[in-house]
Amino acid sequence: MTQDKAYAQALANKTTDFAGWYNDVVMRAELAEEAPVRGCMVVRPYGWTLWENAQSILDRKFKETDVVNAAFPLLIPRSFLVKESDHVEGFVPEVAWVTQVGSGQEELAEPLAVRPTSEAIIGPIYAKWVQSYRDLPLLINQWCSVVRWEKRPRLFLRTSEFWWQEGHTAHASQEEAEERTRMMLEVYRSFLEEDMAIPVIPGLKSEAQKFPGALRTYTVEAMMGDGRALQAGTSHNLGDHFARAYDIQFLDESNERRYAWTTSWGMSTRIIGAMVMVHGDQQGLVLPPRVAPYQAVIIPIWRADEQKAAVLEAVDRIAKTLKAAGIRIKVDASEGKSAGWKFNEWELKGVPVRIEVGPRDVENNSVVLARRDRPGKEGKEFVSQDGLSGHLAALLEDIQSALYSKAAAFREANTVDVKLEQELAEVVGARKFARAYWGGDPEGEERIKQATGATTRCIPLEQSGVEGKSITTGKPTSQQAIFARAY
Amino acid sequence: MTQDKAYAQALANKTTDFAGWYNDVVMRAELAEEAPVRGCMVVRPYGWTLWENAQSILDRKFKETDVVNAAFPLLIPRSFLVKESDHVEGFVPEVAWVTQVGSGQEELAEPLAVRPTSEAIIGPIYAKWVQSYRDLPLLINQWCSVVRWEKRPRLFLRTSEFWWQEGHTAHASQEEAEERTRMMLEVYRSFLEEDMAIPVIPGLKSEAQKFPGALRTYTVEAMMGDGRALQAGTSHNLGDHFARAYDIQFLDESNERRYAWTTSWGMSTRIIGAMVMVHGDQQGLVLPPRVAPYQAVIIPIWRADEQKAAVLEAVDRIAKTLKAAGIRIKVDASEGKSAGWKFNEWELKGVPVRIEVGPRDVENNSVVLARRDRPGKEGKEFVSQDGLSGHLAALLEDIQSALYSKAAAFREANTVDVKLEQELAEVVGARKFARAYWGGDPEGEERIKQATGATTRCIPLEQSGVEGKSITTGKPTSQQAIFARAY
Repeated sequence: MTQDKAYAQALANKTTDFAGWYNDVVMRAELAEEAPVRGCMVVRPYGWTLWENAQSILDRKFKETDVVNAAFPLLIPRSFLVKESDHVEGFVPEVAWVTQVGSGQEELAEPLAVRPTSEAIIGPIYAKWVQSYRDLPLLINQWCSVVRWEKRPRLFLRTSEFWWQEGHTAHASQEEAEERTRMMLEVYRSFLEEDMAIPVIPGLKSEAQKFPGALRTYTVEAMMGDGRALQAGTSHNLGDHFARAYDIQFLDESNERRYAWTTSWGMSTRIIGAMVMVHGDQQGLVLPPRVAPYQAVIIPIWRADEQKAAVLEAVDRIAKTLKAAGIRIKVDASEGKSAGWKFNEWELKGVPVRIEVGPRDVENNSVVLARRDRPGKEGKEFVSQDGLSGHLAALLEDIQSALYSKAAAFREANTVDVKLEQELAEVVGARKFARAYWGGDPEGEERIKQATGATTRCIPLEQSGVEGKSITTGKPTSQQAIFARAY
Repeated sequence: MTQDKAYAQALANKTTDFAGWYNDVVMRAELAEEAPVRGCMVVRPYGWTLWENAQSILDRKFKETDVVNAAFPLLIPRSFLVKESDHVEGFVPEVAWVTQVGSGQEELAEPLAVRPTSEAIIGPIYAKWVQSYRDLPLLINQWCSVVRWEKRPRLFLRTSEFWWQEGHTAHASQEEAEERTRMMLEVYRSFLEEDMAIPVIPGLKSEAQKFPGALRTYTVEAMMGDGRALQAGTSHNLGDHFARAYDIQFLDESNERRYAWTTSWGMSTRIIGAMVMVHGDQQGLVLPPRVAPYQAVIIPIWRADEQKAAVLEAVDRIAKTLKAAGIRIKVDASEGKSAGWKFNEWELKGVPVRIEVGPRDVENNSVVLARRDRPGKEGKEFVSQDGLSGHLAALLEDIQSALYSKAAAFREANTVDVKLEQELAEVVGARKFARAYWGGDPEGEERIKQATGATTRCIPLEQSGVEGKSITTGKPTSQQAIFARAY
């Protein structure tokens, strides 16, 4: 399969050095790189196109639930940030402060935070916009970058600046806020599972793990290729905490003044890192077709010069047909690179399907299709050029669901039910998810964290209802939780 | 036409108080408002949707010229910003500096600028990416916000934070860089004229007016409804200035090391302000159909309760048909507001066409269409529900071109050829464009600016070629320039 071993060998070994492999893939596939600003990254065009494709799907899903977009200020006065006490405690340690402006380095009267998240600036704005129950619900999202100072940066996973969307809603009742919180969690779940082919466990965060200032936080947790967990999106029911802190009040139908109920929910460029770690292999990226910048790459192959024109003419015709069918196609007709080199390059870049067109294919009115997710002969087929776009579309759907199934099977195989803290330590030490009965005591949770490095990832929404004994206290409970080491 | 005078009267008078009128329209139509952070704005959902629609058209146009998107860091180390001396002089007075991080207010070793524009961070990154002629051209754009500290903020026109796109390209030859600079100017021109219905004068900026650090700056200049000029987009040929400052070098085909040639070009949320000022009237916004969030609003009208169901059924059916035809439709079936109130509200919000559906229309299988750009009976027609989507699509195209023609005629009527500085002073004092022969002397340009408040807006690309005498020196020249007071 790999014609040019030297090319592929340059990636660190995925099994023995997962972190090195991850970094190699991200850099070599030109997704992102470290910026010449400490802790920050540059998202390169190939990586950004992935994010754009994700954005476009998510944005459509948001709008289907009546969410609209807007833009709120980047800079937040210090006095706003400190109004919600849990919130400020959670975020201020990571805040970058603007304190001066201009060449004379004029000091500002009040430092401005570069937004780490926008509850503290949206709160006072919503307080103005929300006057009556008729102004509710307020359902607004913004796409932007945020800054959280990061001491141990890793591309996509932890950087001082990252890109995300943050939705902020306000409601007339607690029930409606809870319903919205869960609705957006479901948007995240369906996006991750259906479009990113990443199976997730939707669940509730423990008190210790929830968003600073939230009433409760829901999360979608995914298992990476090394068995560690990654929080892929969160949806917070903020109760009336922020409404009280920022005075978001409205007159209800009986003309009484009430506090609004708010939510916020976010998903970030982190999911690109998750996608790398869930689907990638020793040859590099493996991209889910629905978000792949190119769903197929066509590589023309010829030996003799007299073959070239016929091959390129066929490639051009095939590319046009496939593009017209709405398939994202890249033609790599560059010269000075061998076909083998190109195979490796586009495998590294994770393109779901490679289409080879050589002189014999021109003669036979056929092409060779090679699936990225199945190396070697098993993933290859010779098909007619007639009806190719229908065939390819079906193949892409098949790859999409194969990636999901493979990841789901991996997670299933690496999730272990445990009853004792010692067992839990062994399981998470072996980079697996430990599922255990847990009543919710913060002391036991902290003890496990100290002893094993594992945190409660979530209390899954789906529970068996069967009773067992809490792993930390031995007391009866019907609640199970997932424990794992996490990114 | 205006059933509820009180509603419309609340807007300041456009003729006698243009600035007040502008602010009223922006606020009342819910495009944007001042943020609770000095000099910054909040772009509200209705305004942001306009920007999203503009983005989507521009982004497609960029991609058609092989530009791709990426994301570069928000924060720029001070030492990077000062490398290009003209550039730093131009921007540093407006820079917001991050000097501290965290709760302990730990001082950074080097202050970081919140980007005012990104040449200074992209330069060093391109220096890494560009090694060989094979890496060129590099054609990258980013959508983001930038911060330039503003002492006299005005919504959309001058705020401390604004949203824009900034394209940054690198080329192997000066000719190619110049070609790209002009190509993007043409993208801006076609977008503004065809999609925003804003006629512009493409031209060259004078030396005094060019971008800090550029070799030359091209601009598209538009006339606002009060006769003042607004720079609606700029495209800079940066020569090798930034390549030398940031060491962007490549090996050419003969293996010689050469500096690259770079360009940058940007268009911002300012164009939303321009759109308000070019098309708006005393009733509020007038939106060009191609970017309007809603291209038509359907207002169901009934008196007796027994009429309601039939009217709403018809409205629902009509809305579905129009949406299926790709027309952006809003149905305002809200209760507790009179039809007249709704008419005014959607006029204020500039929706291009109002569709009225009453009991008689249901009987007659007809609707009433009212054009936003032609008040009163002249703009009303009664048409059949059959074939409505085709009819409406044509009407929207007609409105689009009518808006353009009206703005072009206004600019034509308010552009005066002048020969003497005294004439020029009178013309720009009367809020018109003065067109004059001008040889390009910076002394005369500065004298005019001091005396009249007018700047050279541009030297139009289209010149008659006929010779005349420079308004500032009396020397012969065949170059004409536009002088005006500007936003």
